[in-house]
Amino acid sequence: MFEFSTILSAAAKGDAKPFSGYPPFHFVGGNIDEPTVPTEALADAVGDVIRNLGHAMGKYGMDSGPQGHLPLRDIICKQLKRRAGMSVDPSEVLLTTGSLQAMDLVNKTLLNNGDVVLVEAANYAGTLTKLDALGVSYVGIELDNDGMRMDALEQALSDLTAQGRKPKYIFTIPTVQNPTGSVMPLERRLEMLALAKRYDVPIFEDDCYADLVFSGDRPPAIHALDDEHRVIYCGTFSKTIAPALRVGYLVAPWPLMGHILPLKTDAGSGALEQIVLAEFLPRNFDNHVEGLLHMLREKANTLCASLDEYFGADVEYRKPIGGIYLWVTFPKSVDTNRLYTVALGQGVEINPGALWTVEGADNKHRMRLCFGHPTNENIREGVAKLAQICFEEFGVPVRSGNVERE
Amino acid sequence: MFEFSTILSAAAKGDAKPFSGYPPFHFVGGNIDEPTVPTEALADAVGDVIRNLGHAMGKYGMDSGPQGHLPLRDIICKQLKRRAGMSVDPSEVLLTTGSLQAMDLVNKTLLNNGDVVLVEAANYAGTLTKLDALGVSYVGIELDNDGMRMDALEQALSDLTAQGRKPKYIFTIPTVQNPTGSVMPLERRLEMLALAKRYDVPIFEDDCYADLVFSGDRPPAIHALDDEHRVIYCGTFSKTIAPALRVGYLVAPWPLMGHILPLKTDAGSGALEQIVLAEFLPRNFDNHVEGLLHMLREKANTLCASLDEYFGADVEYRKPIGGIYLWVTFPKSVDTNRLYTVALGQGVEINPGALWTVEGADNKHRMRLCFGHPTNENIREGVAKLAQICFEEFGVPVRSGNVERE
Repeated sequence: MFEFSTILSAAAKGDAKPFSGYPPFHFVGGNIDEPTVPTEALADAVGDVIRNLGHAMGKYGMDSGPQGHLPLRDIICKQLKRRAGMSVDPSEVLLTTGSLQAMDLVNKTLLNNGDVVLVEAANYAGTLTKLDALGVSYVGIELDNDGMRMDALEQALSDLTAQGRKPKYIFTIPTVQNPTGSVMPLERRLEMLALAKRYDVPIFEDDCYADLVFSGDRPPAIHALDDEHRVIYCGTFSKTIAPALRVGYLVAPWPLMGHILPLKTDAGSGALEQIVLAEFLPRNFDNHVEGLLHMLREKANTLCASLDEYFGADVEYRKPIGGIYLWVTFPKSVDTNRLYTVALGQGVEINPGALWTVEGADNKHRMRLCFGHPTNENIREGVAKLAQICFEEFGVPVRSGNVERE
Repeated sequence: MFEFSTILSAAAKGDAKPFSGYPPFHFVGGNIDEPTVPTEALADAVGDVIRNLGHAMGKYGMDSGPQGHLPLRDIICKQLKRRAGMSVDPSEVLLTTGSLQAMDLVNKTLLNNGDVVLVEAANYAGTLTKLDALGVSYVGIELDNDGMRMDALEQALSDLTAQGRKPKYIFTIPTVQNPTGSVMPLERRLEMLALAKRYDVPIFEDDCYADLVFSGDRPPAIHALDDEHRVIYCGTFSKTIAPALRVGYLVAPWPLMGHILPLKTDAGSGALEQIVLAEFLPRNFDNHVEGLLHMLREKANTLCASLDEYFGADVEYRKPIGGIYLWVTFPKSVDTNRLYTVALGQGVEINPGALWTVEGADNKHRMRLCFGHPTNENIREGVAKLAQICFEEFGVPVRSGNVERE
């Protein structure tokens, strides 16, 4: 047998195992509620649109060129105007294979080995993994209930300046932050823009959860407040329609877009999703999201009630005001790396806090729970099981679910 | 305005312009005949399959995990067995955003800056661009009517060995080579495997055009003849169903697959295409390809007849036995870089030979013409126009189409 292990590149560090299915209690990944995937409306949308537009799929870029299906880019611009206050021309939109490809493209366009960027101190693990893979260092900016703290951001900018370094960008998820769930208020968004201007640094705004604010009321995007083309923006339909559709988008001004496009070396993202969404969205999106938010709010309530019931005062969390994640803090005696391993062996999967934070060692007593995909019943059962496992491993919760409560 | 040009990465070398539509005579790109895109059958396939399977799209990997929709991987394995003689398990198949993503993944997994690989001397321009971007050098192996020449391959392997270098892989498009259109006979495939074994080098087999052999009769894939897991293989449905669908696949043995998967950082390729193809293929693929080949053979005939009519003995080409490309040689006085620029200004787009060869300067009198997308009528008109432009610029053809023939 040829030994490929002897000729791997420096980038080939990972070693994945074959997929063996999902555990029964699966509180990880940005998956969503399966019954909410609008299969009927998508099925209704798709037949006619394939009959009408399908022949154009004979060309890589259909009739729209390398940035993706123009009618969908038009619709996205209208939605961004209406929902996020943004003024964007379709020529500034690139359709991507999910927002993760958008993130990879921005990184590839701007980052060199040895660069530094600023990120929220608790973050999407993939953000940090991607930066690690590029040899880019990052400074974690502390968060509070309103998102990234501006005093901490200013300190970091000032510290780097003193070192003669300049961050390539400030990465932020201002609207339903991942994993903490905060929504940054308007005033703080303006402050961030002012700081970015003062230190002449661009902002990379990830607005992937922005449609999932439970109240339906969100502040304008930072991009909407920017009059200097300083903000690169990405969004997605993964969290509102279906993650497996893999339709995300990147918003960037020209000529930056002209530098990004040559780095999208896959000759385009899937067109079928694009033409189906262009048909589906105008008639269905707002109603669909309204139903989705109802469902997510209920799941968030179930999760919080279950944590209260089975862990009581031994966990801390902030009740979600949007999104699909809960950021949970245990007493320091709980090591969620170990909890992850033991629980997974018993069919309960969680995200250990160390992977979702810049200062991983300081956050070993935290975890992220994703409540988008499991049913209410599965959430209750899974939390009960997790409480029992946690009690057996760490004596937390002090009165476990399998011990009779007074 | 923020000046992104001041903070670009070393990789951001390109500078694309906004898409401004296709020229009227568009003989470039691997686009296919629009009327052959099977819109009715796809539309029929898609409604029910979304109703039945759509909810699973609530998970990034549906029920199949990160390698893509398992039923489609099953079908691909059956097709590869039947059409290419390959024995592949679905766990060795990764669904990708077109075969270009497969190529990027193989490169990322195996290649470091400074490495060397072997490629066919005339090649897909993207192969060379991707290698250039990675800082990987390549040795071009001469081709004849049966594809890569084995004496030249052996010489290159021996030369590199003498220099103490070992190529990371031999890249080949053995079945309907791009751009020359050759099909490598069985005996030569076995020779290539023997050389690869002797020099202990893997083979990267790109079989993207393999379903387009006009006779319907193709030799087994090199992968099928390999008993040492030495061959990495990619294929696509871009050329048989529709390029805009972006469904390609990579075949690689474990544990190599385990090193590739972590580098696919987009959380999956579009699922809708995957579930639709899984529904469409078993009932339709063979019939569909038969009709497609009929159409392509007719277009190849039209293109050859048009070249004969308008260029006469002033161009050389080999009549296609498959595929969608024609590789055309002019007298040395014709510079296709200049022809490209002048013709594009008049609405005729061609691929200049310099970009499609390792020794570009030696191939400035060649060009690639793509006949998959234009209609027969468009081919005739476009070739007539090209002949007139070429005559005006270079005096070739000696008796141009706009000069009365005797």
